[in-house]
Amino acid sequence: MIVGLDIGGTNIRALLIRPETGEIINRRQESSAGNENELLSSLTKIIESFSEVSEKEITGVGLAIAGLIGRDGIVHYSPNLPNLVEFPIGTHLQDLTGLPIFVGNDATAGAWAEAKLGAGREIDNFAFVALGTGIGTGLVVNKKIVLGAHGFAGEAGHATTQSDGPTHITGLSGSWEYFASGNALGRLGREAAQKGKFALGLELANSEEQITGLHVSEGVFNEDQQSLVIFDEFCRQVAIGISNLITILDTEEIILGGGLVQIGDQLVSGVEKWLPEFVFGWKHRPKVPVRLAELGIDAGSLGAGLLINEMRKDNK
Amino acid sequence: MIVGLDIGGTNIRALLIRPETGEIINRRQESSAGNENELLSSLTKIIESFSEVSEKEITGVGLAIAGLIGRDGIVHYSPNLPNLVEFPIGTHLQDLTGLPIFVGNDATAGAWAEAKLGAGREIDNFAFVALGTGIGTGLVVNKKIVLGAHGFAGEAGHATTQSDGPTHITGLSGSWEYFASGNALGRLGREAAQKGKFALGLELANSEEQITGLHVSEGVFNEDQQSLVIFDEFCRQVAIGISNLITILDTEEIILGGGLVQIGDQLVSGVEKWLPEFVFGWKHRPKVPVRLAELGIDAGSLGAGLLINEMRKDNK
Repeated sequence: MIVGLDIGGTNIRALLIRPETGEIINRRQESSAGNENELLSSLTKIIESFSEVSEKEITGVGLAIAGLIGRDGIVHYSPNLPNLVEFPIGTHLQDLTGLPIFVGNDATAGAWAEAKLGAGREIDNFAFVALGTGIGTGLVVNKKIVLGAHGFAGEAGHATTQSDGPTHITGLSGSWEYFASGNALGRLGREAAQKGKFALGLELANSEEQITGLHVSEGVFNEDQQSLVIFDEFCRQVAIGISNLITILDTEEIILGGGLVQIGDQLVSGVEKWLPEFVFGWKHRPKVPVRLAELGIDAGSLGAGLLINEMRKDNK
Repeated sequence: MIVGLDIGGTNIRALLIRPETGEIINRRQESSAGNENELLSSLTKIIESFSEVSEKEITGVGLAIAGLIGRDGIVHYSPNLPNLVEFPIGTHLQDLTGLPIFVGNDATAGAWAEAKLGAGREIDNFAFVALGTGIGTGLVVNKKIVLGAHGFAGEAGHATTQSDGPTHITGLSGSWEYFASGNALGRLGREAAQKGKFALGLELANSEEQITGLHVSEGVFNEDQQSLVIFDEFCRQVAIGISNLITILDTEEIILGGGLVQIGDQLVSGVEKWLPEFVFGWKHRPKVPVRLAELGIDAGSLGAGLLINEMRKDNK
């Protein structure tokens, strides 16, 4: 058995997984609050509790965390978990449990879960794009997960799509994430409301400032015309970054994950509409379908578990 | 022995290569003018002439061409060789010679040559960025060349870095190549001259319209202050696209190729200066060195030859 853990800004999502099939045998959720030692203690307790209920021995643990996560098991940069920065969580957890540990980026882990068990099955080359508060991406090239030189690969959300654009919370200018994340959808809604072009949003949120992406999604769901205009611009921005991934990597398909997939088919068709405007040589290449991820919020923990399993096999 | 051919807009550069070492045994250069059948005839003649001088049998031929070149040996889109579009050059050449043929993108081939014999030796993850009239890029991930789903990978020059930017010759808006190719360097020079900020360029070229990137390079070489200002903005634009490759792929280093490498160390230091502004989490990751390619104009034909050799080995 293997354990997969996804450590977010508020919660740890934990899964006990049968590695041969990816079947989820047990699950737990705990708070991720506290300093690095409290977090380590929570993780150890989760692994122990799985150990008690597991019919077979646990042979490895995978950790998924947002940010620049090193192959060395060190969290080098994580906006959601500032306490963990430069903390060698992999080594510590290995010392405490005696188990092999893989630590990796959450979207990269999610991509691998989709590759093995979800919408990327039998797809050799794809990008997984998780649209949530921010944008996380994970890349599969030639059936292998791309970790990069240090484990930092797949941060396409922080690549530049409009170099003269505003400064993002990261300090970088014109990052894709600034224009195309869930937060961006809310900002587009507020900007439209300021111009008197999002009446439904104002009605739902009571004030311009309180408008979020959820109000735009609700408008899209109800086919509100003003909401559809806002959403179309959002889809254009999503398509710009996705087009860059297609142009650079020649992916066979794009898999959309993260909270915004709840919008569903309208997100898919909205993005697909704009790809011909931004993909190099669109007319001369096979269509690149955009699909919705299949594994939902389990993708990160599941993928991290499957990655430690993969690495154990490679080392044998 | 293997043959590597790089088919450009004006010339075919041909090499007879010893596959074990990459040693160049013989070389030829022919015009690439004419229709697809004339080109096929030129290629066949070159291969025959190599056959006559080669001490060992020729066992494969690699073709490097700019554009979207399919794994199927079809040139799907090639701005420099419009006659070849949708022409199955791989199959035809295989029929004519009876040899295994690989057809691929020239910058992708160049990346592989640098990986095996040049500046990328022993580097598992890097991007090769050829700055010439346009921008070609080739990617090495986990010691393997990235061809992508259809063979089109590595077209980062056509990825968007400024989505509200001008329309490029490809019809796409705000492509990296528009801002950071050799052509862009000339345009920056002409724009500066129009504002009275490139006196040396006007002197060298006789008129604003005749200023090219070469005049800016000459000014940089002579440490002309106005030229250095123009060149600094050029390097900033080059750094934006390179930063995207680092952020997306976590490359260990960047290898600069193409005609502009003749500028040398000032190009390297000019680009390196701007990377911290655009790479995600720059302070938290190891330095990503920028290096000059080592194989010059042979990279494309050499890499194409080495790739057919690689594929023959994989098929055994």
